[in-house]
Amino acid sequence: MRIRILVTGGTFDKQYDELTGRLFFRDTHVQEMLGRGRCRLDVAIETVMMVDSLELDDAGRGQIVERCRSTAERAIIVTHGTDTMVDTARAIAEANLRDRTVVLTGAMVPYAFGSSDGLFNLGSALSFVQVLAPGVYVSMNGQYFPWNKVRKNRASGVFEATE
Amino acid sequence: MRIRILVTGGTFDKQYDELTGRLFFRDTHVQEMLGRGRCRLDVAIETVMMVDSLELDDAGRGQIVERCRSTAERAIIVTHGTDTMVDTARAIAEANLRDRTVVLTGAMVPYAFGSSDGLFNLGSALSFVQVLAPGVYVSMNGQYFPWNKVRKNRASGVFEATE
Amino acid sequence: MRIRILVTGGTFDKQYDELTGRLFFRDTHVQEMLGRGRCRLDVAIETVMMVDSLELDDAGRGQIVERCRSTAERAIIVTHGTDTMVDTARAIAEANLRDRTVVLTGAMVPYAFGSSDGLFNLGSALSFVQVLAPGVYVSMNGQYFPWNKVRKNRASGVFEATE
Amino acid sequence: MRIRILVTGGTFDKQYDELTGRLFFRDTHVQEMLGRGRCRLDVAIETVMMVDSLELDDAGRGQIVERCRSTAERAIIVTHGTDTMVDTARAIAEANLRDRTVVLTGAMVPYAFGSSDGLFNLGSALSFVQVLAPGVYVSMNGQYFPWNKVRKNRASGVFEATE
Repeated sequence: MRIRILVTGGTFDKQYDELTGRLFFRDTHVQEMLGRGRCRLDVAIETVMMVDSLELDDAGRGQIVERCRSTAERAIIVTHGTDTMVDTARAIAEANLRDRTVVLTGAMVPYAFGSSDGLFNLGSALSFVQVLAPGVYVSMNGQYFPWNKVRKNRASGVFEATE
Repeated sequence: MRIRILVTGGTFDKQYDELTGRLFFRDTHVQEMLGRGRCRLDVAIETVMMVDSLELDDAGRGQIVERCRSTAERAIIVTHGTDTMVDTARAIAEANLRDRTVVLTGAMVPYAFGSSDGLFNLGSALSFVQVLAPGVYVSMNGQYFPWNKVRKNRASGVFEATE
Repeated sequence: MRIRILVTGGTFDKQYDELTGRLFFRDTHVQEMLGRGRCRLDVAIETVMMVDSLELDDAGRGQIVERCRSTAERAIIVTHGTDTMVDTARAIAEANLRDRTVVLTGAMVPYAFGSSDGLFNLGSALSFVQVLAPGVYVSMNGQYFPWNKVRKNRASGVFEATE
Repeated sequence: MRIRILVTGGTFDKQYDELTGRLFFRDTHVQEMLGRGRCRLDVAIETVMMVDSLELDDAGRGQIVERCRSTAERAIIVTHGTDTMVDTARAIAEANLRDRTVVLTGAMVPYAFGSSDGLFNLGSALSFVQVLAPGVYVSMNGQYFPWNKVRKNRASGVFEATE
């Protein structure tokens, strides 16, 4: 089983620009993270875009959906900013990709910072994508949620089940 | 669903003793790791022992099996040294705990060291234990293996499928 | 010899706010950093303010000067944002505190991020303040500069000697 | 002013061997540490040996002394295990290298481990070597000591002044 990781940016991949004092994107850290995790899965990493998910519009979201549809792999992870992760999950679900397991994940703290949850979340998403039935899921906080049963609680920064 | 984490030591939890220059055990890092991962699962952590898995004998192994049997939770993670992880997995499997999912995991590098795979592995094991069918599994390198289809390749430090 | 550390904020002490995705100030990391460095000097830490040095105005600068003047210790470190560190050094120098050694230092990357230069710079500043003659100095990049012979090269992020 | 760093091993440079679970030496981390510190000093790094200082005998110590004597630079840092750092300081002092400032430093925790004091100590030693008068010094815990006024307190792991 081969897994495709579609990188879209988000906190996950933010870095600190020491000249401007701002956070920015350069390259994804996913390859380095897989190395850290001694991951031996067959993984293809593809950077679709590098954006803050608050800046992601319908066109960008369409691009992610399109890659989920056209990629050869049936197990797909999308790394994504947490703010609109649920929106992108819905967009992918509405595309009705029946034979695919898509797991969206991200991080609350950039991987480049000591206290990041990114490595934990990546390990978690890679595991869920191997065993969950086809469908679209959000994986954060050690949990997984079907795309239509989850929201981000912005006050606490935690993903929680709806209903 | 509540998950029980049985801590048994292993590289995972080793620390550096700056007075002697040796590696040793003090407390488990699992609670801190769950905090880092912003984990929101219902988890009970229990330290069964703190040993190097090369020093684990049948009595110690029996103690771990006994805790897997008697604990109320049906989803169980055992943190364990990698050297004899497969042996302990077999001992647990032979106890025939039919309704339980037991996932053993560990680390190649102590969590306290910058380059540890521990956080990745913990995220991975917590995910597998939620979705795998009852049985005994080893989870390392982003993968899971049924207890009787895995060995540690000591030359490469990687867990691989047998047969 | 007792050393006073006057904390004024700067990159040094910035943290990542995982709810807003912005950098902000909470408490100083200096105490934690001294612990990491196993520092056994007699040090008094005092937070004068917590600001980005680009937002520091004359009033704020006057406050720092005033603390340099009135503090009992003759060896003083000022942690400071790098952008206007040289300006504050000049303000302190113009106050003519003849019996005091004042060393300003900071960081290009927040201490809370894995790749920070902060610990190196703090070790460096603490050493210089013990042995340099009375005067006002900037200590960055492993070097020290008299206050009137240094500028920050904004293109490279490096402090360099003028003339 | 050019500074020579003579690397001799010690805790400073120890790494974790994930196959054997033991600490060992490979390459020195000093170059990487200077990069982290954004150090702009003119520094030449030379690995003299890579040993645990408890295993350092008279011949090895003589080799370090010889490099202190023959090197072109007058500002010299020796990275060294803490257990016999004072012994090597004495050996260098007895060689009577009148025009040289030699600062020995090390670490209580390997640089490769998250909680290392190494970066702090290196920043400190590089600063002292620039400003101290010719002589042989030990620099640890943010302090410097003349070679004949210091001992390592093995119970606390701290260097302290003798009389």
